Amino acid sequence: MIRRTSLLAAAALALAAPAVAEAASPAPALSAADTELPPLYRAELTEARSFVSEMMAAGVVVPVPEDPGGGYTHEQHKRNYKAIYLAGELYRITGEQAYADYVRDMLLAYAELYPTLGDHPARHNQNPGRLFWQVLNDAVWLVYAVQGYGEIRGTLSEAARERIDDQVFRRAAEFLSVDSRATFDRIHNHATWATAGVGMTGYLLGDEDMVERALLGSDKSGTSGFLRQTELLFSPDGYYAEGPYYQRYALLPFMVFADAIARNDPERRIFEHRDGILLKALYTTVQLTYGGYFFPFNDAMKDKSLRTDELYHGVAIAYERTRDPALLSIAEFQGRTVLSEGGRLVARDLAAGKAKPFPFRSLLLRDGPDGDRGAVAVLRRGGPEHTVLVAKNTSQGMGHGHFDKLSWQLYDNGNEIVRDYGAARFLNIEAKRGGRYLPENESWAKQTIAHNTVAVDMRSHFDGDDELGETIAPEQLYFSDQPGLQVSSARVENVQPGVALQRTLMMADIPGLEEPTVLDLMRAESDASHSYDLPLHYQGHIMELGFPVESHIGARPVLGEDNGYQHIWVDAAAQPEAGDTAMTWLLDGRFYTYRFVTDGSVQAILGESGANDPDFNLRREPMVILRARDKRDHAFVSLLESHGRYDGAAEQTVASRSRVRTMRHDRINGTDVVRLTLADGRRVAIAVSHDTDESARHQVTLDGETLAWTGFAAVIELNAGGAR
Amino acid sequence: MIRRTSLLAAAALALAAPAVAEAASPAPALSAADTELPPLYRAELTEARSFVSEMMAAGVVVPVPEDPGGGYTHEQHKRNYKAIYLAGELYRITGEQAYADYVRDMLLAYAELYPTLGDHPARHNQNPGRLFWQVLNDAVWLVYAVQGYGEIRGTLSEAARERIDDQVFRRAAEFLSVDSRATFDRIHNHATWATAGVGMTGYLLGDEDMVERALLGSDKSGTSGFLRQTELLFSPDGYYAEGPYYQRYALLPFMVFADAIARNDPERRIFEHRDGILLKALYTTVQLTYGGYFFPFNDAMKDKSLRTDELYHGVAIAYERTRDPALLSIAEFQGRTVLSEGGRLVARDLAAGKAKPFPFRSLLLRDGPDGDRGAVAVLRRGGPEHTVLVAKNTSQGMGHGHFDKLSWQLYDNGNEIVRDYGAARFLNIEAKRGGRYLPENESWAKQTIAHNTVAVDMRSHFDGDDELGETIAPEQLYFSDQPGLQVSSARVENVQPGVALQRTLMMADIPGLEEPTVLDLMRAESDASHSYDLPLHYQGHIMELGFPVESHIGARPVLGEDNGYQHIWVDAAAQPEAGDTAMTWLLDGRFYTYRFVTDGSVQAILGESGANDPDFNLRREPMVILRARDKRDHAFVSLLESHGRYDGAAEQTVASRSRVRTMRHDRINGTDVVRLTLADGRRVAIAVSHDTDESARHQVTLDGETLAWTGFAAVIELNAGGAR
Repeated sequence: MIRRTSLLAAAALALAAPAVAEAASPAPALSAADTELPPLYRAELTEARSFVSEMMAAGVVVPVPEDPGGGYTHEQHKRNYKAIYLAGELYRITGEQAYADYVRDMLLAYAELYPTLGDHPARHNQNPGRLFWQVLNDAVWLVYAVQGYGEIRGTLSEAARERIDDQVFRRAAEFLSVDSRATFDRIHNHATWATAGVGMTGYLLGDEDMVERALLGSDKSGTSGFLRQTELLFSPDGYYAEGPYYQRYALLPFMVFADAIARNDPERRIFEHRDGILLKALYTTVQLTYGGYFFPFNDAMKDKSLRTDELYHGVAIAYERTRDPALLSIAEFQGRTVLSEGGRLVARDLAAGKAKPFPFRSLLLRDGPDGDRGAVAVLRRGGPEHTVLVAKNTSQGMGHGHFDKLSWQLYDNGNEIVRDYGAARFLNIEAKRGGRYLPENESWAKQTIAHNTVAVDMRSHFDGDDELGETIAPEQLYFSDQPGLQVSSARVENVQPGVALQRTLMMADIPGLEEPTVLDLMRAESDASHSYDLPLHYQGHIMELGFPVESHIGARPVLGEDNGYQHIWVDAAAQPEAGDTAMTWLLDGRFYTYRFVTDGSVQAILGESGANDPDFNLRREPMVILRARDKRDHAFVSLLESHGRYDGAAEQTVASRSRVRTMRHDRINGTDVVRLTLADGRRVAIAVSHDTDESARHQVTLDGETLAWTGFAAVIELNAGGAR
Repeated sequence: MIRRTSLLAAAALALAAPAVAEAASPAPALSAADTELPPLYRAELTEARSFVSEMMAAGVVVPVPEDPGGGYTHEQHKRNYKAIYLAGELYRITGEQAYADYVRDMLLAYAELYPTLGDHPARHNQNPGRLFWQVLNDAVWLVYAVQGYGEIRGTLSEAARERIDDQVFRRAAEFLSVDSRATFDRIHNHATWATAGVGMTGYLLGDEDMVERALLGSDKSGTSGFLRQTELLFSPDGYYAEGPYYQRYALLPFMVFADAIARNDPERRIFEHRDGILLKALYTTVQLTYGGYFFPFNDAMKDKSLRTDELYHGVAIAYERTRDPALLSIAEFQGRTVLSEGGRLVARDLAAGKAKPFPFRSLLLRDGPDGDRGAVAVLRRGGPEHTVLVAKNTSQGMGHGHFDKLSWQLYDNGNEIVRDYGAARFLNIEAKRGGRYLPENESWAKQTIAHNTVAVDMRSHFDGDDELGETIAPEQLYFSDQPGLQVSSARVENVQPGVALQRTLMMADIPGLEEPTVLDLMRAESDASHSYDLPLHYQGHIMELGFPVESHIGARPVLGEDNGYQHIWVDAAAQPEAGDTAMTWLLDGRFYTYRFVTDGSVQAILGESGANDPDFNLRREPMVILRARDKRDHAFVSLLESHGRYDGAAEQTVASRSRVRTMRHDRINGTDVVRLTLADGRRVAIAVSHDTDESARHQVTLDGETLAWTGFAAVIELNAGGAR
């Protein structure tokens, strides 16, 4: 459950925590100067001292690499790079020689180890690391370690410096940029880490060649390397093709290396490069959250929020350059910062009360280097526990992409109401395949049926071929953030050969309904006959079904054999009569009614994830699938209505039932009209012309009533006494 | 999820709320005097004014009763009694005549309606009400309404007073105490509400006969009535036989009527009656919580916490008498109080910073009027997110009791780890059978297999006969709250004919394990052969199974046909080899390993609730059932170990695997010895003599090692090099 309140509470706790940490900490007492530091920075300093003191007390421990992610040697080398980095920072801030000596001794131990290493014994793919099972972790190690080393390198004897330069950093840079050239020259976040580590090493060692290879790729042509990555990995709106989870992860090396470039090569104007893309990417990363948690597009861990090391760095670096007070409120939510000068500024200005709320808003983020590979549409409405509709009309998103063209999510009341499963993975938990992606990530999490979009003929989009998927991007047809009726409309061709999907999602204020209401027009089009399945992965407990079902209460069958269907238990199925029908669920004190129109041939399948999961790798989550069989074109028209309150403490329940009496859909010459009759007799229409000309006038006549409006779509109040 | 943090956060929000309410409220502006009131009291006043103003603006609405719980007329009559009560309080506090007039007009409308009423049309049982579907609600109406009326009665014309006295209150009292005598004379919380309403009406009208019938029962013999209820419904330790959920509910009429008795009949010394049982019951109610939420024994709604109207009254009344600063911290958590003088004192002293932490502690609460009908053992350890083990060794608990002799629960890290299902009910949600108990309350929630105790031959205790259950209470054999090794041991005979259960639950600090560890010795004894099932209803996601399973991954069968088994889907079953084995799950960043000993014949069944549930009335929750077949005596010996941390934000995982390598159980002449070998080679034994003589010395020799200890049980460190 994602709650804005817990977000606030956790921020408060995080701020309260240092007092406890101080009392329990074995770190040296704070100096008088420390106590004049702003609280957030002082807390970081205390925590860093505590951590480094513990590490120093344990002595230098540099084990021969052995374990995969989560295992002892993996975690120890992670602790080590953190200790090198923080001890370096502490030396810079305090001037205490012990920190410099510790970094030196640690790196001398690595100088012993590094030359002895070949491929990591727990390697599992084509890109093995030396210290870690995958090369990516080695790059991360270098990004942190080189920063710590930079702070103390000037204190070393020539012999020690030479030894560490040559046996650790040159070797690590060589490994990343030469031995692992295939990774280094990719346009991919792994390469961003690698180029950042190598480039910063180059600056530190004064090795121009190393810097150039990092910036321009190993052949220095500029077709790969860091600069090219900033051009190809982000869209013009700062959206990162792999999605927010990886955007957050990739951001650290982008920001940290850019900061180093700005200091060492100011004339490169890196932060102005491509219209300020790096800072834009940071702001976009923050916009792609609800309650502080990232929208879990593609392979994403759902527990990932803005409270993450990458963004402590990102916010500090950005704030040092922009002094934007909205960033301070993000730091406040994070309850953390970094020990850099930027971090000190963040802490100082936060303590001075300069924070302003971050301007979360509705926006369209184009995808693709040129902004023409689909988009993410974010429709926001309301206060802190606001409603957010996210339409994922993006491109495939590389190897971590899911087959979910035109899928969507809905957040409301602090919760994810219409869900995205995210990745099937337990990060760093050894018993779960060493913390790697689980087989169910391929067999379930990536598949179309695991998302809120149409699966054709029980197959995934592009038949689950991500290379094919990369060639086909949706087109964002229309976007409006107009208050009262926000709209996203998009289309994608050939999710299966000859099958196009077109979806118009609207968040509308409907007179007579208490909350914004979502209208979903999902249209599948083909010249040939197909079966279309539209799942809704909702969160909540079913309160009421408006249609009779055939229940599988005594033995629970599985919906299919492959493409994710093998993971769906079927609880019940129904074929509601022609007209409209609905189901209502309860979540966290609020009721949600999902209403859909049917011609009488549509099946509704109530299911749950978790079948064919012998290792209990999947979460068990409910869904309803609308199934239209033997159709060429088919329109799924549905309404998601939030209503009422259940208050367990006060034992009060209000409006637990839908306030919509009937819903009707008509399509006339390409225009969609949905008419609602409310429980109180009011009538309202939502008319969609699909005409992006905002000034074009439209008119349709239905059952003797004439509806007129201007532009793409409109909410029109009808005469209560009018035709039903 | 129940979290201590959310508790604090919600308290903060509740305190923050009035500012918003004030801004939005249509109530008159606060007077200068108001602003000098303590914040909590001022907030209540503001909220009461806002509510009553809205009600007054809507006019007097007293509909003819029609709907069941949750329906319109039901909710309107609830709003009305709340308005009568609060308007009376507001009149007393402010002297504003409009409040008195409103109460008068409302009650005159009831005077019109009441004489026309017969049994409620939505009656569903033998105890129909007049205004409400069940007589209980009518009693609640009277308890609130008579208090409001009391505040304004002196302002009325004689005619109005007489009309309201006779047509509303005398009729209501007559209905409750004469027409509904069967309810009135029960020893049951419904009768507490009825006697409170009738007694307070008697005091107000100066009707001594009414008062005496309320205090001594309708025949005034004292074998029933309020005083007898205080003697029979609470144990000497203040435990209420139905469990905490109903204890909380029953407490309001007990406290409010006692307060009235103390004011009108001070010589009765009601608060000293039976060694101060009423105040003791209040404190006990608070002790029966975790994170502010009640242990969900028997028919309990799990969202019920100390934040409930009954306890706002209870705390205020108790504080006015005791001035115990620990009660102030409860009021602080509640973020609410009442408008009485007691409420004002609570708010004043809370604002003055007088609150002290409530002394939550380990304790044994005897059940039964004489304290000899079993007990609840509460074992607590640690700080705010402390670990609590609850052993439910109580008697049946009347009609709302569950068939769960010697069941237990575990809370840790803010969560319920070993769960009790509570009731199958959605309170006040009309679509769920009008908010009544669901059929699944009988078919699942009450059944033995839905609890953490042994079901014999796939049947529930006492074959689900609560009258039989009432005749058989467990015996608490031993209890110790000694730090380092807390113990509860209890026995019950004849849960099925000729089958006894004896269970010793221990919360032990084991050297080498990071958290307190639970050892469970559950022994079933019989002269005949039986099948014994011991479920563990855990909460979390399975990380690792230490034994091979046969999975039902392609079609999910149901475990049985009745007694709750019909609601269990079977995911997998196993028959682990002789020795010990374990399973590990993850919940909220902490790992839990359940380890058990087997002779090779015990089956482990992994299941989930939710089968045979066509209306989606059940929550779907996992369980593991240990099944021993064809046994006379059988000991289930298991260990629940909490370990490690998963931090999704920091992407850190530590100790995700059990730190116990092996567990072995021996029973020698009635003494149980469990020996553990830890992953680091350490060895430790937990020896249980079952001898309640604290000074008796015991000794056993196992594999050449001699173990010696004193008293009931001990944790003994063994030589690491000793026998395995």
